[in-house]
Amino acid sequence: MNLRDYITEVPNFPEKGVSFKDITPLLEDPQGFALAADQLLDFTEGLHIDKVVGIESRGFFFAPLLAHRLNAGFIPARKPGKLPRKIHSQEYELEYGTDALEIHQASISEGDRVLIHDDVLATGGTARAMCDLIDNLGGVVVQCNFLIELSFLNGRDKLEGVPLKSLIIY
Amino acid sequence: MNLRDYITEVPNFPEKGVSFKDITPLLEDPQGFALAADQLLDFTEGLHIDKVVGIESRGFFFAPLLAHRLNAGFIPARKPGKLPRKIHSQEYELEYGTDALEIHQASISEGDRVLIHDDVLATGGTARAMCDLIDNLGGVVVQCNFLIELSFLNGRDKLEGVPLKSLIIY
Repeated sequence: MNLRDYITEVPNFPEKGVSFKDITPLLEDPQGFALAADQLLDFTEGLHIDKVVGIESRGFFFAPLLAHRLNAGFIPARKPGKLPRKIHSQEYELEYGTDALEIHQASISEGDRVLIHDDVLATGGTARAMCDLIDNLGGVVVQCNFLIELSFLNGRDKLEGVPLKSLIIY
Repeated sequence: MNLRDYITEVPNFPEKGVSFKDITPLLEDPQGFALAADQLLDFTEGLHIDKVVGIESRGFFFAPLLAHRLNAGFIPARKPGKLPRKIHSQEYELEYGTDALEIHQASISEGDRVLIHDDVLATGGTARAMCDLIDNLGGVVVQCNFLIELSFLNGRDKLEGVPLKSLIIY
């Protein structure tokens, strides 16, 4: 079973010239989904992990399951305005303008060992912001892992020094 | 262990007069998360389920795990413009204006037995729209389940005829 067979490339989405990697066929196939989850977990073998951060929204597909299987807490990193209590926020740059991710301040304790998960590593801006946010709260990012890495966008360069794993590399 | 102890009520969020039920403490506690998942699964005992639909975004916290444990496909119901291929869309009313949810047309086959999951049943508008969408595609909604039901908003009235389960009722 090749996980790449479950990814559908959709040309010119969300804009002209971009080949979107659609992971919904993988999510819809119980065997494919299970295999991807198992392989993401294999990446964490031997690591002690206290918290798993999933990045809104597609990072939520696997991160809660990873947390559950690692007996770790799951923390959703959310778009601004969604979390009701005291938050920490980190901005990151988009092609045009900026966006931000937030987590509750109380979610990370000093020394927490954190796995960050998202569906796709593209330019690395989002993951970098998330790493900085965890650092600022006193947590330790022990790994960032991704279903898909778009290696031609050089996201790894922005994440130097962070242990990084991805399942399917384009 | 009482699941309700893991829900934090935050007054006046997102607006004055609303008591927001914050489920992030439940997500952050591995035992609480596991218990909630087990109890949501207990609701489905004896049902044959082909697909689990999770509603963006908080429905994504548990729906993929439910699908995984049921050996069913997971289908994310997304806000407009997120899914790249041919979609079916269903509008629903908000307090002011309307919103919509979309799934890929190919995600539901005639006769598919579908579990719909979301974090909160409030007025029932979102869940009703999702049921209608599944019906229109020839699927059969065998259950809607929720972590939380705000019974004072009478969401059940909008979902008459749909088997409905919720874990924590306010």
